[in-house]
Amino acid sequence: MKQLLKVQNFNVSSDGYGAGENQSLERPFGHADPREMFAWAGATASWPNRTEPGGSRGLDDYLTRDFSHNIGAEIMGRNKFGPQRGPWRDHEWLGWWGDEPPFHTPVFVMTHHQRPSFTLSDTTFHFVDDDPATVLAMAREAAQGKDVRLGGGATTIREFLDADLVDTLHVAVSPMKLGSGTRLWESPEELLDRFHRDVVPSPSGAVTHHLFWHK
Amino acid sequence: MKQLLKVQNFNVSSDGYGAGENQSLERPFGHADPREMFAWAGATASWPNRTEPGGSRGLDDYLTRDFSHNIGAEIMGRNKFGPQRGPWRDHEWLGWWGDEPPFHTPVFVMTHHQRPSFTLSDTTFHFVDDDPATVLAMAREAAQGKDVRLGGGATTIREFLDADLVDTLHVAVSPMKLGSGTRLWESPEELLDRFHRDVVPSPSGAVTHHLFWHK
Repeated sequence: MKQLLKVQNFNVSSDGYGAGENQSLERPFGHADPREMFAWAGATASWPNRTEPGGSRGLDDYLTRDFSHNIGAEIMGRNKFGPQRGPWRDHEWLGWWGDEPPFHTPVFVMTHHQRPSFTLSDTTFHFVDDDPATVLAMAREAAQGKDVRLGGGATTIREFLDADLVDTLHVAVSPMKLGSGTRLWESPEELLDRFHRDVVPSPSGAVTHHLFWHK
Repeated sequence: MKQLLKVQNFNVSSDGYGAGENQSLERPFGHADPREMFAWAGATASWPNRTEPGGSRGLDDYLTRDFSHNIGAEIMGRNKFGPQRGPWRDHEWLGWWGDEPPFHTPVFVMTHHQRPSFTLSDTTFHFVDDDPATVLAMAREAAQGKDVRLGGGATTIREFLDADLVDTLHVAVSPMKLGSGTRLWESPEELLDRFHRDVVPSPSGAVTHHLFWHK
């Protein structure tokens, strides 16, 4: 069974941006409002941050709960891990996710600046300075036969798409424009030369799901 | 976390039948053609019976691969287990599924006729003569905290719906009429007094998914 490289539950604006400009500690998505972008997932019963019972169990919930299905490692870009740029000035920053990150697997953070690995709960973060194919090989080995999730951001996903390493992508397109930021695509049609696609408008009305798989 | 009772990947014709008439060893679905009814699932990469690589990884695949997600036990009616009626005349019949049934959990077969439990691979079949609530309590205990799948057939699902024990249902409605057989509903609208629903036409064109969850 092939180990897939999968993009899952990645959100972009209708003009193709995965995050806005000016990311900061207070604004992980820059000028984009994550509550607005992720409203479709937050409304589901399986949303990992849900603290009270309830939530929908329709189409959006299938996509939300598939997040960790058969996933053995995650790859992310440095800007998904945190707002710092350049050399790590301190090692206090341990990511946005608190003491229990939602990954539960090894996570490979792509950065040009070395930093020791550390573990929070059952998630271990490794910091790697290599090309996409090499990082994918490391993540595949760490995943022990399971699939690898490519977590984002848009720039990192683009690098793996350009190297033609991505097997499946689920991108949720929100009906809002950002105008600037980090862009995944000009248009989802760009990928149709290499991917099959299902376009599924969510019955919740909050988003349209684009499900791609490699030809 | 509540242990859900879930119907998953259950197929009916556009006139509401889950199987045709005159079930036999040669025709598990009676006069219905299972290849036609299940074509949507058979085309997916995650279809358990797939023997060669390939298959789609779009919407239908999300539904197919969710089949065993967090499931700890299955309940089925006797007519899903096999074509015999009345007292068990022999114990040679071990189900339709060969030496490796796709359940991988305890399975509770509802029947008025006693028979000893047996195990095939990692699936154990138990034969129980009780009301739906009692069988569900047994299955919940066997599931050890995970959810319970209600596998069918239509008559068995109806019993649990009438007892208001079902939490979520995924029913795939095929664009074909059977005219007679075992019926799940006259119309899916019957359930809307007690359930929310997403209706999602599959982009494959082979089926329409109805995703219900209890209000």
